[in-house]
Amino acid sequence: MSVLIVGSVALDTIEAGGRKVKEALGGSAVYASVASSFLTKTAVISVVGKDFPKKHIDVLKKHKIDISELKISEGRTFRWTGKYSCDFNQAHTLDTQLNVFERFKPIVCEKNKNIDYLLLANIDPDIQFEVLKNICNVKIVALDTMNLWITTKLKKLKKLLKLVDILFINEDEAKQLSNSKNLLLSVKAISKMGPKIIIIKRGEFGAMLFKTNELFFVPSYPLEKITDTTGAGDTFAGAFVSYISYIKNIEIKTLKNAMFYATVMASFNIESFSVSKLSNLTKKEISSRLKMLKKITEL
Amino acid sequence: MSVLIVGSVALDTIEAGGRKVKEALGGSAVYASVASSFLTKTAVISVVGKDFPKKHIDVLKKHKIDISELKISEGRTFRWTGKYSCDFNQAHTLDTQLNVFERFKPIVCEKNKNIDYLLLANIDPDIQFEVLKNICNVKIVALDTMNLWITTKLKKLKKLLKLVDILFINEDEAKQLSNSKNLLLSVKAISKMGPKIIIIKRGEFGAMLFKTNELFFVPSYPLEKITDTTGAGDTFAGAFVSYISYIKNIEIKTLKNAMFYATVMASFNIESFSVSKLSNLTKKEISSRLKMLKKITEL
Repeated sequence: MSVLIVGSVALDTIEAGGRKVKEALGGSAVYASVASSFLTKTAVISVVGKDFPKKHIDVLKKHKIDISELKISEGRTFRWTGKYSCDFNQAHTLDTQLNVFERFKPIVCEKNKNIDYLLLANIDPDIQFEVLKNICNVKIVALDTMNLWITTKLKKLKKLLKLVDILFINEDEAKQLSNSKNLLLSVKAISKMGPKIIIIKRGEFGAMLFKTNELFFVPSYPLEKITDTTGAGDTFAGAFVSYISYIKNIEIKTLKNAMFYATVMASFNIESFSVSKLSNLTKKEISSRLKMLKKITEL
Repeated sequence: MSVLIVGSVALDTIEAGGRKVKEALGGSAVYASVASSFLTKTAVISVVGKDFPKKHIDVLKKHKIDISELKISEGRTFRWTGKYSCDFNQAHTLDTQLNVFERFKPIVCEKNKNIDYLLLANIDPDIQFEVLKNICNVKIVALDTMNLWITTKLKKLKKLLKLVDILFINEDEAKQLSNSKNLLLSVKAISKMGPKIIIIKRGEFGAMLFKTNELFFVPSYPLEKITDTTGAGDTFAGAFVSYISYIKNIEIKTLKNAMFYATVMASFNIESFSVSKLSNLTKKEISSRLKMLKKITEL
């Protein structure tokens, strides 16, 4: 089974924990696809500008990510500049330059039209919709979004929600989308909008899974030092979808294990800037954290 | 085995979720002892004024709580007036009247001097210390505290920490006490101050247990409606200590189960003002929530 991911490929300039990186490899499709590549064949639909460094392409190639639909357009790559509060609870966007994304019209090639698992990673809902309508016979569609799109493109987002199986959303955004202050009432309201499975991302407090009447909670993996939380949600989503595509079902047991796997992958991601840590992970490191996460949550 | 609890007995006036109660039964010793009474014989050391309503005494009597050391002094009972933000994340103290607590000197009677389990519920560290120094041969001493005492009585609090086995503290307070922004580093720093076992209360995000190199996380019990979170931490502490006194050890398995039990008892507490819900609980209701909490956390 393989996973197709549409999302952004970006150059991120980030200040966090007193350190700074300039034009590092970032974007939702990058974090999600690198995370996904450990378990399954992964393809990316996105766009970069002619200025996009070859060394970044090499990172994706190293993970055997299919980049035949990573379009290289005239113009500059999407850029994001952000700064984190010292406890990482707040990300302040200092600058966003859409650049090549302003005119991006994704075209899905023949080989990807019959993909089984599609992740619409966090990006403009118009682009997510464009990809989704070009896919046939997809088994599972997962969608990640953010407060910006809830505020600016609610109508299109709600149209999309009717068509997706799995929604990734953080707790505040879920409350915003459902207009409720209670987490349980929020997920119940959102489930009526379409997605059968809702995953609430709670940052340092972990994540919650909702599937009809089933709930499942997982804490975040405890770390003594965090370097940069950029891409944690994208990593979580990519790892989650790769896990269910690997197991080939969405039974509750599979979903619970996917929550564990995604939590562990996200924990590695926040230990470095960009995908530096993620892209050098060993299977042993992953299984060791999975074992520990089990130990600190089971009775 | 039995548990001795020192803490406040209060008359609380509370505004929460658009509702208000006046002079309701409250105080850390009340919540903790009612929670504790379900599993073990429980005694309270505290003080009230002559104005303390008989109906409130009757609640404690109904739970067979030993109130022979609940002193009735000349003067008025301790009063607290507070208001919660609509998401219950902030409690604003509008008024505090110490009244009879201003001159309270706890005296431990002979029968309680040889208690096995002592809970120093949230109250002035001077009072906690006074009780502790009068106890002999105690097996386990647990302490709950709050930001007020970290700010105003840090020296006495640190003296106490050297003498306690278990500390209950919320996440922000732990970070304040340890001067660290990282949860893991916080508990490691606090464990060097004395307590072998540290329980971090995280409100709606659950709780974490730390014991030397063992960690354990439990989410809060998911509820669609919260009425008043006053006393949730006291209920948690009382239930936790009652559980270990009931099982008679502090092995990691016992502590993990105590975390579950305390989480469930706290969830009932926040469904009503005062101890209304807690004091009418059935064993069936408790075991049903324990079962559900297990279901939503185990793989």
